[in-house]
Amino acid sequence: MSELLQKGKAAKQAAKTLGQASTELKNKALQAIADGLSANHTPILAANKQDVERAKAANTSAAILDRLILTEQRIQDMVTGVKQVIELADPLGEIMESYDRPNGIKIDKVRVPLGVIGIIYEARPNVTADAAALCLKTGNCAFLRGSSSALESNKAIVKVVQEALTSVGLPATAVQLLEDTSYETSDQMLQMNQFLDVLIPRGGAGLIEHVVKNATVPVLETGIGNCHVYIDEAAEPTMAVNIALNAKTQRPGVCNAVETLLVHKDWGVESLNKLISALNEQKVKVRACSQTKQTISDLDAADESDWATEYLDLTVALKLVDSVEAAIEHIDQYGSGHSECIVTENEQHARKFLNEVDAAAVYHNVSTRFTDGFEFGFGAEIGISTQKLHARGPMGLKELTSYKYILQGTGQIRS
Amino acid sequence: MSELLQKGKAAKQAAKTLGQASTELKNKALQAIADGLSANHTPILAANKQDVERAKAANTSAAILDRLILTEQRIQDMVTGVKQVIELADPLGEIMESYDRPNGIKIDKVRVPLGVIGIIYEARPNVTADAAALCLKTGNCAFLRGSSSALESNKAIVKVVQEALTSVGLPATAVQLLEDTSYETSDQMLQMNQFLDVLIPRGGAGLIEHVVKNATVPVLETGIGNCHVYIDEAAEPTMAVNIALNAKTQRPGVCNAVETLLVHKDWGVESLNKLISALNEQKVKVRACSQTKQTISDLDAADESDWATEYLDLTVALKLVDSVEAAIEHIDQYGSGHSECIVTENEQHARKFLNEVDAAAVYHNVSTRFTDGFEFGFGAEIGISTQKLHARGPMGLKELTSYKYILQGTGQIRS
Repeated sequence: MSELLQKGKAAKQAAKTLGQASTELKNKALQAIADGLSANHTPILAANKQDVERAKAANTSAAILDRLILTEQRIQDMVTGVKQVIELADPLGEIMESYDRPNGIKIDKVRVPLGVIGIIYEARPNVTADAAALCLKTGNCAFLRGSSSALESNKAIVKVVQEALTSVGLPATAVQLLEDTSYETSDQMLQMNQFLDVLIPRGGAGLIEHVVKNATVPVLETGIGNCHVYIDEAAEPTMAVNIALNAKTQRPGVCNAVETLLVHKDWGVESLNKLISALNEQKVKVRACSQTKQTISDLDAADESDWATEYLDLTVALKLVDSVEAAIEHIDQYGSGHSECIVTENEQHARKFLNEVDAAAVYHNVSTRFTDGFEFGFGAEIGISTQKLHARGPMGLKELTSYKYILQGTGQIRS
Repeated sequence: MSELLQKGKAAKQAAKTLGQASTELKNKALQAIADGLSANHTPILAANKQDVERAKAANTSAAILDRLILTEQRIQDMVTGVKQVIELADPLGEIMESYDRPNGIKIDKVRVPLGVIGIIYEARPNVTADAAALCLKTGNCAFLRGSSSALESNKAIVKVVQEALTSVGLPATAVQLLEDTSYETSDQMLQMNQFLDVLIPRGGAGLIEHVVKNATVPVLETGIGNCHVYIDEAAEPTMAVNIALNAKTQRPGVCNAVETLLVHKDWGVESLNKLISALNEQKVKVRACSQTKQTISDLDAADESDWATEYLDLTVALKLVDSVEAAIEHIDQYGSGHSECIVTENEQHARKFLNEVDAAAVYHNVSTRFTDGFEFGFGAEIGISTQKLHARGPMGLKELTSYKYILQGTGQIRS
């Protein structure tokens, strides 16, 4: 039997034990993982060094190298992350609804694990510990398929996790790493419906599209964010500049950063100049529509493709619009359903925007950067869903669960 | 542009209007549909006659013909179904959660439509009116792909629905029928992610598997039910016989009917004989395991394939098991995660079974036939989900919705 099938089968078996494990036991396992990561920083760093040297030899870009590299501090951050998960409430067993039917049948809707979650991710090895901890807490088995570039690091981390599981009496197979990182095997994993309940891809647009296109296992689509800030004619100038700047520059490489600023044509030339100066000061390249260039001629010209681009760096597109309706229409056409913001003092415009824009998170006078499980108060995040099925927006522990109906009676039959 | 793309695009556009339509307007549309179906029974029956004649000429089986045929009564049942949906509460706009963050941001989690729902279904033309009504009430556009055998009937029904929509000022394209029923076009529909938010296949196992295997649009998997009734050693004999009989015979062709009876070996020969006599009286063929045959030799012998078979007729497999654990293990291996029942007076066994069996609905002393949106009190049903993502078990109006987060602040930026 291939590694894939063997580990898939083992995960499905372990899911039963894990789904019935007490909160206390799961927390004990998480503590053992945190302790294990702390105690084993030397072998983990040694394994990581192998990955980094291989990546350097392959002329990997500095950005990807940075994601790959582990340090004492980054291992400590993983430990902190795992410990935080211990503190979170266990969502399992919650009675979500409970009612009696006229025929005397009692119906309880009870929160249960999803089962086995396949997680497909790119370079960052910290995802390994992070995903394992979140799955474990929610009674799910984690079936991890990391990047081949991080294979040694991931193996070292999973070894620690599995030893911790064993030490508390839980099956080591509750968290497994697929070591065969060939594309062929990866694609087989996407169709392993007999053992996997859900797939969560975490990474760039290419990875996510590949998973969505090829998976037969249900997918939780995460992450692509072509986000907009619409500055209404009634926007308070300082607030609008601050929000636009924060949404673009506070961390430009992430999915909730803004990519296009839509500005009402009557916001005022002075305000517009202030916005552009502020962006320039922060080294943001502005790609402007032709109407903007009529006012401020020394900007780069945007073309049609800019409206659809997730730059993920210090570049922003800028378009003047005639109305809140035109802003919404632009977002309808180009937005990816992630995070969309209106800055305005006009409550009616705000209400219209919040109601009509179809996105996971819609904002009034707040930076789009808050679309995040921690900022939402979930205490954890496995990703940000941009689909409408199951979960939308930041996914915390609850979003890693399903439910079942328990019906109890006294011999009721259907007539 | 092909019919598929043109109608897909129109659906996406209509989704915006429909998602913002008031409950009052949607109910007005539903009433107009009900009235239209009543008023147009003659053209609908004439269209249906064409389908039926074509099906007869193609030597279609009596069972499928029965599903295809419309009568005055069946049209009246559709009208009643649509009217029932008017009475149900509109789930949209519900504030599912509302809280303030320490930084002053107010977060509301609000129920919204899914958008455009693709429904792929087999012969029954009544699904056309039914699905249209449920989608409409929940602010979703219905993109219908019915069976080619029911094309004329479906066209006639959709014509009435679209006239009703237009009459109240809603876009006719909120409910559309794909008239090109070629397999090639159908498969393109499964990957039309730009216009469809969700797919719901309704029909036999073959249809559902095909959709799951080929769709890139998220799927709500419905319907396959290999259900079990486990009769524990502590089962009250009369109750156990009644439940087994009801679960098998009350309507054998549906997904929540029982397919295998698991009987504890110590339940008693007398009780077992009573069970088998009762099944025989109702013309149920029993396919028994070798251990049962040692006691009651004149039964047909079951083989391995019987445990995995969804008979959907008056046949049942019967297996003796040594314990509740063995029953759970059998269900783990062969069950389809639909509906599973234990009959017992032993609370500990019941608790174990209800906790450990992984299915949409688990029953104690109740027939599996109750897994149904109406029996659950939802007032409607679009299907029964056997997957764990989004919705599990009967899906009513709420299960046809998603949510979005609305964040309101006073200029908050992230530091």
